Amino acid sequence: MTAENNGARSEARGRRDVTVADIARRAGVSAPTVSKVINGHSGVALDTRVRIEKIIEESGYRRIDASPPIAILEIVFQALDSLWALEIIRGVEAVARDHGLAVAITETRGRLTPGNAWIEQLLQRRPTGVIAVSSELSGRQQSQLSTRGIPLVTLDPTGEPAHDTPSVGAANWNGGLLAGRHLTSLGHRRLAMITGPDRYLCCRARRDGFVAAADAAGLPEPPVLSPAAPLYVEGGIAAADALLSAPTPPTAIFTANDLQALGVYAAAQRRGLRIPDDLSVVGFDDLPFVRWSNPPLTTIRQPLTDMGAAAAHILIGPSTGTPPSPIRVELPVALVARASTAPPHRHGQ
Amino acid sequence: MTAENNGARSEARGRRDVTVADIARRAGVSAPTVSKVINGHSGVALDTRVRIEKIIEESGYRRIDASPPIAILEIVFQALDSLWALEIIRGVEAVARDHGLAVAITETRGRLTPGNAWIEQLLQRRPTGVIAVSSELSGRQQSQLSTRGIPLVTLDPTGEPAHDTPSVGAANWNGGLLAGRHLTSLGHRRLAMITGPDRYLCCRARRDGFVAAADAAGLPEPPVLSPAAPLYVEGGIAAADALLSAPTPPTAIFTANDLQALGVYAAAQRRGLRIPDDLSVVGFDDLPFVRWSNPPLTTIRQPLTDMGAAAAHILIGPSTGTPPSPIRVELPVALVARASTAPPHRHGQ
Repeated sequence: MTAENNGARSEARGRRDVTVADIARRAGVSAPTVSKVINGHSGVALDTRVRIEKIIEESGYRRIDASPPIAILEIVFQALDSLWALEIIRGVEAVARDHGLAVAITETRGRLTPGNAWIEQLLQRRPTGVIAVSSELSGRQQSQLSTRGIPLVTLDPTGEPAHDTPSVGAANWNGGLLAGRHLTSLGHRRLAMITGPDRYLCCRARRDGFVAAADAAGLPEPPVLSPAAPLYVEGGIAAADALLSAPTPPTAIFTANDLQALGVYAAAQRRGLRIPDDLSVVGFDDLPFVRWSNPPLTTIRQPLTDMGAAAAHILIGPSTGTPPSPIRVELPVALVARASTAPPHRHGQ
Repeated sequence: MTAENNGARSEARGRRDVTVADIARRAGVSAPTVSKVINGHSGVALDTRVRIEKIIEESGYRRIDASPPIAILEIVFQALDSLWALEIIRGVEAVARDHGLAVAITETRGRLTPGNAWIEQLLQRRPTGVIAVSSELSGRQQSQLSTRGIPLVTLDPTGEPAHDTPSVGAANWNGGLLAGRHLTSLGHRRLAMITGPDRYLCCRARRDGFVAAADAAGLPEPPVLSPAAPLYVEGGIAAADALLSAPTPPTAIFTANDLQALGVYAAAQRRGLRIPDDLSVVGFDDLPFVRWSNPPLTTIRQPLTDMGAAAAHILIGPSTGTPPSPIRVELPVALVARASTAPPHRHGQ
């Protein structure tokens, strides 16, 4: 970008010919004040800022002839505490680099919806695009991005994804189905699943696919579903403890992610249960280190780096002449059979 | 920042009153051409660019009254393929966020020195500062940053760190010493270490500390040192295979990082050796998942998030009135004793 043409003039005209001056007049403020709000700059009182945002949104204003954005793709995570996040970053970074873009990371410290400070700072940076991972931008935040011409993609969306926001995810339902088929084809009849929080659509889809496989296999009882457990090792330990304490415990457990599966390993070991002899375990993700767990974990491989790359392609596409991407990109998953699954003991039946 | 004052005027005067016009005159080009080079913009032929860079460097020019930089801290990694990287990112991100900055990530795909495309793109973004992780910026790249007033910090520097570049690392030598003392105090007499690449000063320091502990314990033989092995699981497997094939194999192995230690687990298992009964293992890093390995790994805890935070503080410090940081920040390490270490079998002695 050339810094020289980055002035207020550049966002003067938008869709339907709404100008900054029009918005200023309707809001009863000066045009520079509207420019400040559009560019995320400070120095505008909160109530004025909210009023101007509302008028911008209602007016249909779009910043269309602005100077080029900063060459950065932004990823917002709820938490940066698992290799899962790093795999996604790698995928985004590889595509971004090929297009001369950097990747910026922000974390909302576990908040589902990022705070207002986050969006104000982001508008100041004016990135090429934003990828929200397992995060739920508020309607106002989504509108703040679209009025500035900053495209948004969600990855593993939560709740009800906005209809006009493209999203990327794995074929989660199919992954649950693969896990269930693998276990039933080994002969397991007493299945359980450690579920993840229902607000993550991906977790809900994995569970539904798993239950569908059990149905299709004609099991006498549907799988026992644990209450929703956090997607961490500790969550897997607590849920597995409860499942394995039942009078007739399961012979196989499917977990919502790999970290929970490592929790099942720990819970089984404390009880003196051997994997896979006494208990089969299937995870979800195929994080790089689970092939080195003891025993190596059977899991559903989720193409996390490909998902990151797909999200980046959707954002970069418009500026490189790529045809518009479909509203929902779903990438395939695969069963990776390792040593944590085996036919059940006969006495366990 | 305000975009309006981001023009060529802003970098007109630098240290010793060298101006863009002076540089243009000496180079026999126009002032706008010099501005393009300073701002990382395209449209200047490579040979001209190199000539101008040389004159900028020789002239002592410093961009001092430029408009504020973009509110981003940049981290450059050689490889984004381990939780190690993510822990550092988390530390940088937490500090950056508190100061309203984003964190940008770039990866050099295993190259020790980033390419010229990387530096040109970075100069265009004009971040608040740069953290180079296990990377070695060329002298020219360092000079390109300093003439633009972009501060640089190295984290786990390689080779000979530049004298005027602040660096951050863990007390690696002390960590090696702790690992050696732990094993000798358990009674081990036949020690080995899987070393990392010597170009990483941190690996060399860990090795030296480990050897020093063996010396101090008066062992009959110094530790067997493997040839330098990659800092990955596969590197640990190959090196452990060689060490364990010796006529009198070691009873304890210290590794340059946790991933190598997981490789020792895999190599031991293939040989039917039990950890810690037949072989003790000590890693280095304390990545989040090694407490869940089987058995849980004894390791030297490296405060990776604190290291990332310290690097960010050094970069942000100057603009927030913090006194200048020392040229080398060394953070403490600690032994985390878990279940992979035990006294040696008597028959193993």
